[in-house]
Amino acid sequence: MKDDAHIRLTLSRGEKITSGMDPRLNQKGCTLIVLAEWKPPVYDNSKGIELVTSSQRRNNPVFLDSHIHHNNLLNNILAKIEANIAGVDDAVMLDKDGFVAETNATNLFMTKNGVLYTPFAKACLNGITRSLVMEIAKSMGIPCKERDLTITEFYGADSVFTTGTMGELTPVNFIDKRAIENLSNCSILNRIQIQYTKKTQSLGEPLPF
Amino acid sequence: MKDDAHIRLTLSRGEKITSGMDPRLNQKGCTLIVLAEWKPPVYDNSKGIELVTSSQRRNNPVFLDSHIHHNNLLNNILAKIEANIAGVDDAVMLDKDGFVAETNATNLFMTKNGVLYTPFAKACLNGITRSLVMEIAKSMGIPCKERDLTITEFYGADSVFTTGTMGELTPVNFIDKRAIENLSNCSILNRIQIQYTKKTQSLGEPLPF
Amino acid sequence: MKDDAHIRLTLSRGEKITSGMDPRLNQKGCTLIVLAEWKPPVYDNSKGIELVTSSQRRNNPVFLDSHIHHNNLLNNILAKIEANIAGVDDAVMLDKDGFVAETNATNLFMTKNGVLYTPFAKACLNGITRSLVMEIAKSMGIPCKERDLTITEFYGADSVFTTGTMGELTPVNFIDKRAIENLSNCSILNRIQIQYTKKTQSLGEPLPF
Amino acid sequence: MKDDAHIRLTLSRGEKITSGMDPRLNQKGCTLIVLAEWKPPVYDNSKGIELVTSSQRRNNPVFLDSHIHHNNLLNNILAKIEANIAGVDDAVMLDKDGFVAETNATNLFMTKNGVLYTPFAKACLNGITRSLVMEIAKSMGIPCKERDLTITEFYGADSVFTTGTMGELTPVNFIDKRAIENLSNCSILNRIQIQYTKKTQSLGEPLPF
Amino acid sequence: MKDDAHIRLTLSRGEKITSGMDPRLNQKGCTLIVLAEWKPPVYDNSKGIELVTSSQRRNNPVFLDSHIHHNNLLNNILAKIEANIAGVDDAVMLDKDGFVAETNATNLFMTKNGVLYTPFAKACLNGITRSLVMEIAKSMGIPCKERDLTITEFYGADSVFTTGTMGELTPVNFIDKRAIENLSNCSILNRIQIQYTKKTQSLGEPLPF
Amino acid sequence: MKDDAHIRLTLSRGEKITSGMDPRLNQKGCTLIVLAEWKPPVYDNSKGIELVTSSQRRNNPVFLDSHIHHNNLLNNILAKIEANIAGVDDAVMLDKDGFVAETNATNLFMTKNGVLYTPFAKACLNGITRSLVMEIAKSMGIPCKERDLTITEFYGADSVFTTGTMGELTPVNFIDKRAIENLSNCSILNRIQIQYTKKTQSLGEPLPF
Repeated sequence: MKDDAHIRLTLSRGEKITSGMDPRLNQKGCTLIVLAEWKPPVYDNSKGIELVTSSQRRNNPVFLDSHIHHNNLLNNILAKIEANIAGVDDAVMLDKDGFVAETNATNLFMTKNGVLYTPFAKACLNGITRSLVMEIAKSMGIPCKERDLTITEFYGADSVFTTGTMGELTPVNFIDKRAIENLSNCSILNRIQIQYTKKTQSLGEPLPF
Repeated sequence: MKDDAHIRLTLSRGEKITSGMDPRLNQKGCTLIVLAEWKPPVYDNSKGIELVTSSQRRNNPVFLDSHIHHNNLLNNILAKIEANIAGVDDAVMLDKDGFVAETNATNLFMTKNGVLYTPFAKACLNGITRSLVMEIAKSMGIPCKERDLTITEFYGADSVFTTGTMGELTPVNFIDKRAIENLSNCSILNRIQIQYTKKTQSLGEPLPF
Repeated sequence: MKDDAHIRLTLSRGEKITSGMDPRLNQKGCTLIVLAEWKPPVYDNSKGIELVTSSQRRNNPVFLDSHIHHNNLLNNILAKIEANIAGVDDAVMLDKDGFVAETNATNLFMTKNGVLYTPFAKACLNGITRSLVMEIAKSMGIPCKERDLTITEFYGADSVFTTGTMGELTPVNFIDKRAIENLSNCSILNRIQIQYTKKTQSLGEPLPF
Repeated sequence: MKDDAHIRLTLSRGEKITSGMDPRLNQKGCTLIVLAEWKPPVYDNSKGIELVTSSQRRNNPVFLDSHIHHNNLLNNILAKIEANIAGVDDAVMLDKDGFVAETNATNLFMTKNGVLYTPFAKACLNGITRSLVMEIAKSMGIPCKERDLTITEFYGADSVFTTGTMGELTPVNFIDKRAIENLSNCSILNRIQIQYTKKTQSLGEPLPF
Repeated sequence: MKDDAHIRLTLSRGEKITSGMDPRLNQKGCTLIVLAEWKPPVYDNSKGIELVTSSQRRNNPVFLDSHIHHNNLLNNILAKIEANIAGVDDAVMLDKDGFVAETNATNLFMTKNGVLYTPFAKACLNGITRSLVMEIAKSMGIPCKERDLTITEFYGADSVFTTGTMGELTPVNFIDKRAIENLSNCSILNRIQIQYTKKTQSLGEPLPF
Repeated sequence: MKDDAHIRLTLSRGEKITSGMDPRLNQKGCTLIVLAEWKPPVYDNSKGIELVTSSQRRNNPVFLDSHIHHNNLLNNILAKIEANIAGVDDAVMLDKDGFVAETNATNLFMTKNGVLYTPFAKACLNGITRSLVMEIAKSMGIPCKERDLTITEFYGADSVFTTGTMGELTPVNFIDKRAIENLSNCSILNRIQIQYTKKTQSLGEPLPF
């Protein structure tokens, strides 16, 4: 019964002596919350998911730096609610300039004519799975470019997929009810997925018990 | 022992069945957290406070609507840390266009030549005390204008004060080490403070025990 | 058979001598296109409509001035497609700063505690019906304010309605699946609608045949 | 009489059953408009052209994605009118951040110290001739960089040229009345032009009659 | 020989002990530069002037607060150069959102249907003549509104004029080669000019010699 | 007595015939100001400096192109005043999007895991020392990337340093009171400094007397 165990680590600034924003009110040190549960990957990666574009923009360093991994995710939650209303899995969030940032929960990749593209980590989390996918692509000789990408480019991609710790690599079948159709004969996603599975199996730390 | 009691109400979306952003994971209804404590006003309003301008901008509806009263205040906390580093009480936060929004914890007002000014409630909370102050000013015949205001205009104001539930009306003596000096012979702040004290005493709900 | 006749006037810059953007290629004067058809109002105003918020922002004078009444409405059409996908009537378009601009086809109004609000005509067309509604409100002593308004404020409005030449005054029942519920006992919309009907009947030019 | 024939293809969404923005009003399928005419290249490429910088910004994906090749070119037309008023050939359009986007009708390139530069395809059309020029440069070992470029950098370039289907490669002699003077001994433009002519002659599809 | 004398006052932070930006390098106090010359008003107000819209945006408080009256006017000078190139008197500068700010040298007003309009003092200097004109309008019962105004609205105005210390009230006849034509029968500008002349004559301090 | 001599060259547009912004008022040609003084480097590079982040944003090409090397540095001076108030050496200025631009006086570099990073020259001067450092890094096989970088990334860098003509390469020990700690065993800064000293000694023009 060791499979599908999931541990969520949250570091709080700790107990406060009174309500207030000042970090000096937290005088007993930080609190590490370890939330463990049995939890399989959140998406069915053999089947894929469907997305809509949210009206809610992903915040940027003017307001909150996406290089800080935090819990202030209310605007992502508002985007997720739009996905729920639309009856789809998740929502694409654009950045302030109208370029694709990520979904409310994962990073986004697209492939076109044999090249792998992903948005700059300006208005999205520089995720661990995202980095690993870029590293795998490089090691396999697949060109991988960070770029400003529009939702129109995603509509016309050969394939689109999301990456995240809990979802791993998940194909996207529809964005805004437009089918993502592979008109090339490249299968970058499949090739990376195979390497990804190998990597996570070999890189994983074996349980000592 | 009934004085200086303070109740902080927080409405959480409630218990989740697993970690995740989706509100549908909260299936048992909301949780109302009632945090009560003895707590006097946070500022010494007879003495006043000192501010610096933060490098951290206050978020706006592109990212998170300030008309939602929420707990996602990490960028305000980052501004408060700048105030701590500078050895002053709180930090002025500008909006994305460089106009004054509010402090990390309170709304801001300034007076100049007999007129009361406060920023539009675009990138700041439309606070209860803020509304009450505007209402009092109106009832006293003091012109009160919502406007885009720059930090330079605050430097040159006759008086500056903050408003908030916990701090009430608090004079600001220095912003960025520049003294706020009353070169006019208007004393709008004092006159409003007297009315405010009257109002809160008469509007308050008497304890039934 | 004179009822519900609708005439759409389009002024083109006229015939070109060759393809190209230069207005000097149009050398024969302008062409006025008069498109007449029997067409009833596009919405059922006794029943009302439903909206979703689009991911597509309404353009502003940086790119194209909304004071020019033109046919370059591709981004409105993209918003309308989002409404179609969501199975609702029309889409709310926000402006570049995240404030409500208008729907893809009409202006927007909301009422709250006896006051009528509508966005500034910065990123929306300064429509004829919009102006007439503001004029009627003024004449009836209903306070009417142009302001930066967020979608959250529309969710919490007492009533929301759209205005347009073809739709006249149309109640909005749902935005993003949130019901617009009148918690006050004001019925500004009904009172204005009655005056609007009177006005359009008296202001209309009688047919000479 | 087969030279200088030009065919302009326009894909319309087709006949509507009534006026309106909803694509569902187009029920008979799309209409392909084939506009053919004898038309030589629009610029005299042996002589070059003159530009001014327009006050009109090129739209970006916040409002309309430049990856969509459409006819909503009113803001380009407004820029062209500025060029007409100034008595020059075309106008440089900047993007929302003040960087050079393109002219109202073509893409823009500049050379400096042996390097070829062109703006990112963020606020300009990713034109076919633009792509071909970049491909040619690469094949000739000329470094070619997409970058945010300012109008000041164009003033000081060794050479500036535009690219487009109808104009091909056109030297720019003046921008805002400042002469573009080649102070280096590089002649990137000439070298690319020779290859371009070869390419278009060999890549062209011979007429079957 | 006392007419048309002009005094320009410039307050420098004073002599520096070495080159550098730090104000602490200025240790001898400020220097007041008094530049006096015989200089008539810079425009022929009986005839009026001509403007073009500059590609150069007027800075705003994100970068430099227009409430600071300073000499860092390089972007205004760049706008003036565009006016020179176009062979007209001055250039209209837009703000970052595409609304009219002012000219490179003066504030701007327009009249339409009996109402006087001028941009908010957000991206323009809150000029002394501007304030006086607004005050005069108020005293004469002419409605005067600060508003976000587009260049299109100026094209269609009944009249446009500039205000400044050196130019006083100057009619604008053309903007971007479009004639400003008074289609109403209001003559707000003339009426204000008469009052302005009276005011400056009576408010002026008589020379003591 | 030839060491530490410093020459500051300033090119003015020259003498004006009257006050005014128009360059045509400068009719006698430009004036070159040569300011020579004995002046050692402004920072103690063996010890390093301390920075705070300014609330003042660095201007960008919307308002003033950073590729123009000019004296309109009032917003840098305002940032420097913030550094003075905070009791530190200089201030980090962010660009309009919240990314790091430069300090009020120098360019900024950071190193992380063996890679050298510096902001794009979009909102900072493309300084000579900056270019030389990038060139040296390249020649030594140290990867050097221009990128959008946040202040959070600088907090977590292995090392941070500034570059400028007067300061050369200066280590930064603290930003916003957070110590910059080298957790890797890379010493990119030292290695570049050695090469920089060699370069400036060999590239310098020997005095002819």
